[in-house]
Order: sequence, then C-alpha cells, then structure tokens
Amino acid sequence: MNIKTLIMEEVLNQEAYSAPEIPCRIKLDANESSYDIPPSLKSRIIESIEKISLNRYPEPGSPDLRKGFAGLYGVDDDMLIVGNGSDELIQILLMAVKGQASGVMFPTPTFAMYKISAFNTGHRVIEVPLDSRFDLDVDSMLEIIADKSPELVFFSYPNNPTGNCFDADRIEAILKESSGIVVVDEAYANFSGKTFLPYLDRYENLVILKSLSKVGLAAMRIGILIGSLPLVHELNKVRLPYNLNTLSQIAARLYIDNEAEFRRQADGVAGRREELSNELKKIDGIYPYASDSNFILFGCTFDTDSIYDGLLKKGILIKKFNTPGVLENCIRVTVGTPEENEEFLGALRDILTS
Amino acid sequence: MNIKTLIMEEVLNQEAYSAPEIPCRIKLDANESSYDIPPSLKSRIIESIEKISLNRYPEPGSPDLRKGFAGLYGVDDDMLIVGNGSDELIQILLMAVKGQASGVMFPTPTFAMYKISAFNTGHRVIEVPLDSRFDLDVDSMLEIIADKSPELVFFSYPNNPTGNCFDADRIEAILKESSGIVVVDEAYANFSGKTFLPYLDRYENLVILKSLSKVGLAAMRIGILIGSLPLVHELNKVRLPYNLNTLSQIAARLYIDNEAEFRRQADGVAGRREELSNELKKIDGIYPYASDSNFILFGCTFDTDSIYDGLLKKGILIKKFNTPGVLENCIRVTVGTPEENEEFLGALRDILTS
Repeated sequence: MNIKTLIMEEVLNQEAYSAPEIPCRIKLDANESSYDIPPSLKSRIIESIEKISLNRYPEPGSPDLRKGFAGLYGVDDDMLIVGNGSDELIQILLMAVKGQASGVMFPTPTFAMYKISAFNTGHRVIEVPLDSRFDLDVDSMLEIIADKSPELVFFSYPNNPTGNCFDADRIEAILKESSGIVVVDEAYANFSGKTFLPYLDRYENLVILKSLSKVGLAAMRIGILIGSLPLVHELNKVRLPYNLNTLSQIAARLYIDNEAEFRRQADGVAGRREELSNELKKIDGIYPYASDSNFILFGCTFDTDSIYDGLLKKGILIKKFNTPGVLENCIRVTVGTPEENEEFLGALRDILTS
Repeated sequence: MNIKTLIMEEVLNQEAYSAPEIPCRIKLDANESSYDIPPSLKSRIIESIEKISLNRYPEPGSPDLRKGFAGLYGVDDDMLIVGNGSDELIQILLMAVKGQASGVMFPTPTFAMYKISAFNTGHRVIEVPLDSRFDLDVDSMLEIIADKSPELVFFSYPNNPTGNCFDADRIEAILKESSGIVVVDEAYANFSGKTFLPYLDRYENLVILKSLSKVGLAAMRIGILIGSLPLVHELNKVRLPYNLNTLSQIAARLYIDNEAEFRRQADGVAGRREELSNELKKIDGIYPYASDSNFILFGCTFDTDSIYDGLLKKGILIKKFNTPGVLENCIRVTVGTPEENEEFLGALRDILTS
C-alpha cells in the first residue's frame, strides 16, 4: 500500500519545520530570554509540584489562568484561551476557519509557522513581501482583501525576523477593510511597549496572541489568545480539552502573580538591545536594523556563512538568513546577558578583522 | 460583522467537549490512576527541574524519548512520535489525511475525541454501533470499507467506555481489507496485557497509540504514536515542532527509566478490578460487564441519576451514561484504591437499599 495516497497534498509538498539542536556555549539563535527565572520563583514552582497529584488530569480550559491573564490584559476572561504555546493557538485559528475558500495572508519574511500551519490545515497561502523599510505593503494587501477576502491575516508585531513593529495605522487600515480575522501576534510585545489591546473594543475581527516563551518560560509552552466572545466560543470547540498540562498551568500562574518582576527583566533586555545595536553600528560593514524586539537583525557586506561558522567555532550560536530577494546576507542575534553580548561583539570583531 | 460566517460548518455544528470540574472526595469518573507516582520518583522530577533552564525551548521532536519508548515497545525510533497527550496525536492523524473524501470510521460507543476531532478537521464521520456483546460489527465495517474506503479507522483497545478488548481477529480482518489507516488506541493496554505491537511488521497501515495518562501521569499529557516509517515521516510535518514541553519530557523519561514499577502498579489495578467486579455482581440489579481496563461499566435496573446523585452526596464521583440505543442506564466507575473501592461499594449498597 502506498501511504502517501492518503495524505493531504499540502502536507506531502512541504518539509517538516527543522530546529536541529546545535551544541553551543552561548545560545543567541532562538530569541529566548538569556536568564532563567529567579531561584525564588523556581522554588515556588517546585513547592507547587510537591503538592499536586500527577495522576490527575489538568484542569480543562485553565479557568483560573484565563481570569489571571484577563486581569493583566484588561479583557473579559471569556475572550481568552491559553494554549500549548502560540503555535497551538495559530493552529486552532487555522483549523476553525473554512479551508481553501479564500486564503490566508501574511507579509514575508515573517514567523515560519503561519505558512507551515496554513498548509497543514489545507489553506491557500497569500504572501505579500514587506516594503524596503520592512513595513507592510498596505496597498497590495488592501487590493488582495478587496479581491480575495482572505479569511485570516497574520501580523507579527514586532515582526520576526526583522525585529520592527509595522506602522500601526497600516495594520488598522487592514483591520477596517478585512472581512476576515486579523491576528496581531504580540509574542515580542514585552520588548516593544506597543500593543493592539486597546483596538479590541473597536474591531470584532481582531485577535491578539501573547507568549511567555520570550520572557523566561520557553520550556513551558504557554501562549495566550485574545479575541471577541463569539470567535473565542467557536475556537474553544477546536481546542483540545486538556491542551495545557498541569505544570505549565503552574508556571503560567507564577507569571501572572509576578508579572512586574518579569516586566522589569524585559525592560532590561530592551535597554541592552540599544547598547548592542549601538556597538554593532560601529563595526564596518555591519548594518543593524532598528528593533522593537529582544533580537537584532543586521545586514553585512561579509559572507554570512563564514561569520556563522566563525562564531560557532567560538561556541556562539546565532541565526543566519540568506533567501534571495527576501533576506540576503542577514544575521539575527538574540540580545543576551551583558557578558554574552560583550563576548559576541568581541568574537564578531575578531572574525571580521582576521 | 458576523464571525460565524468565517467558521467551518463542522465546527459551528458541534458542542465543545465538556469536562466540568465537579468537587468530590473520591474521584472515580476519569479513569486516572488512583495513586500519585511514588515520592522517590517525584523527587527525581523535582531534581531535574532544579537543573534545567526554563527560559530555553524544549528539545524539538523529543529524540531521547523516542529512543526510550522505541526500546520499550521494540520498534524503530523513527516509527514513533511523542505527543501532548494522545488527543494531539489523534488530531495530527486527522489533519494529515485528506479531508471529506471518504470519511473516518469508528464503532460507537467509544472515546469521544475521535468524533470531535474528525469534525474539527473537516471529515465525514461513519459510526458503526457495536454488537450486543460490545464487540465490532465486523460485517458492517467490511461492507463500508468495500463501499466507501474510509481513510482512517479508530479502535480503542480496550474500548472506552465499555471496557472490553474487541476480538483481535475482527480488528485484523479490518486491517487486512482497509485501504486506509487503522488506529489501535491502546491507552488502556497496561490493564489488558493485550497489544497490536506484533502486527506492526505485517500491516503498514497500522498505527498504535499509547498513553501515560492512565498509569499515573495524566497531569503531564504524554501520548505516543507508533506507525510505519513513511506515515510517521508525513505526520511529523504536521506535528508542531515544540509540542511537548520540557517538564513533560522529564516525566516521560522518568516513566521509561522506571517502567517496571509503573507496570507493577498497573497489575495491581487489574487485580483490584476483578475484586470490584465480583463485589458488584453480588448486588441485585447491578450487571458489570467484563473489563480489560482500569474501569468497569455496569448496567443497572435502577435509575442511574439517583445513583449518581446519591454517590456524589457522599463525595464519590462516577460517570453515568444514558444515551438511548447506545448505552442506557449505565455507570462507569474507575478502579480506585482498595479503600476507595470499599467506600464506593458501601455507598452504592446504601443507596440501593434505602
């Protein structure tokens, strides 16, 4: 029997998302927080684990967490779903909306999972290249909306891997004109200070995604979706009942109860980002783009492969991009600890002058 | 704007899976293990948590776990996917196979998620009632296979909520004739001693699901899928890259390293199941069905609502079924600790004689 005849064509035609584990000493490739959570908070997680019964199913739907996050974000808790990372919430959105009919639109380059999950759920994909300043080509997007009415539009705000926030007026123009759902993915919003939360009152088709993966809890896979009541009601039918395990629920609770502490840490990252950017600007042939995130994208006049290899030889892992016409000769580096940033800069200077 | 116009009809037409938290003292409704894992094993989880960095993403694809489970089940590790509970693996299967074309078949009554997730992924559903002995109506199923070639067939082995294992020859007849994938969900196989693992060599269309939720780790959401290499290759494209959080990976590792201890505990449950069944048989008007699982389904000549309410008043939670033509006047009780079973039996006798 040929198993492939049973598989959706969109799945057959794509590659699996690849995230190989590359051994390194300084990990600046995945936009994680460079600091583990403080020992005092970790102890609280451990105390909670000692008390809970691992033989019991997690509480379905995470009602306490929804209340907690609703308080943080100033929304009704029925507007909120907690997921096994934003990845799961993106997939839920794509599963719930009709397939094929009119397509899923997003700018490019952006977060890879929009496209991968759109294909895996049988959607047609409409990619619209960013303009030369890495902002939205709003005219093209509005034309596509008028012409094809995409059922879902994804924006990463700030955008990964470019690092910038798109112009808010451009996103609002699309929110206004779109007859589909517009997702503003704020995975990196803790470093930008910008959010579309205030727009929720005005636009029933707005969905906001949040994540705890960039602020110190990547290991726990916690994402949050916020949207209008009727939409969230439908999405909850698609969400698997026990999607968030008990220990991730405990970690999410910890975040809610200590949000100020996590926020201070994120503010520190934003400060170090500016220092790192200023240092990068001083290096000949390195051109950092403005960033609202916890990472910096920079173009180089040097061969990125040899920079990548040179850094890895010194134990430093970054991410390189070399897609013709999209991102050429670019490197993305996560903002690390002061020591990590120093070592990264030193190694980079060494490689470029040797 | 009317959000509902954007949502798949199959999603609109269904109810969300409901699993309300009902406060109780003795929880015998969800087929969990009645014992938490031993303190010595819990300490090892805690030691591991102390060592890991919560700020780092989990290892994608869980390669070490795949190797470990592959060793336990005697298969190649590339035949294996670890999931966020079997629920996720069922969803991945349903996402990967073509929609609508020919339908998804399963017997009824069975585990609710086959139907819910089939609808959520846009499939047509073909339900075939079990025969009067809760076994497969193999003739009807073979006719449907000849006629409609369902792309996926699901069997729960042992079946939930009836508790029995279907006749293996009937499942094999379907494996032989089916041009689609046949899933044998062995979530409860630790209590039956029966498995389709040896059939994997013979049938490329066989998929086996395993779960750690019934043996003491329900909180952690760990499921395992085993299938042929070409199928697993495609399914991995649909699996979200970071589907299993780091702490669940740690718990799964603990299970692998201490499988014998978990197995002893499961054997204890199987023994207590027989004792509980024998005691139930002695009660007038109570008719327990033979079970290969960690729960017992029984029919009663009494009103199940008043039994349910009476037990709950005493702090004991069980599950009742009253679907005309499918399961009428039935109750499902999880095998508890010796003390829990004793208390449940005493309370049941009290209610029936008062």
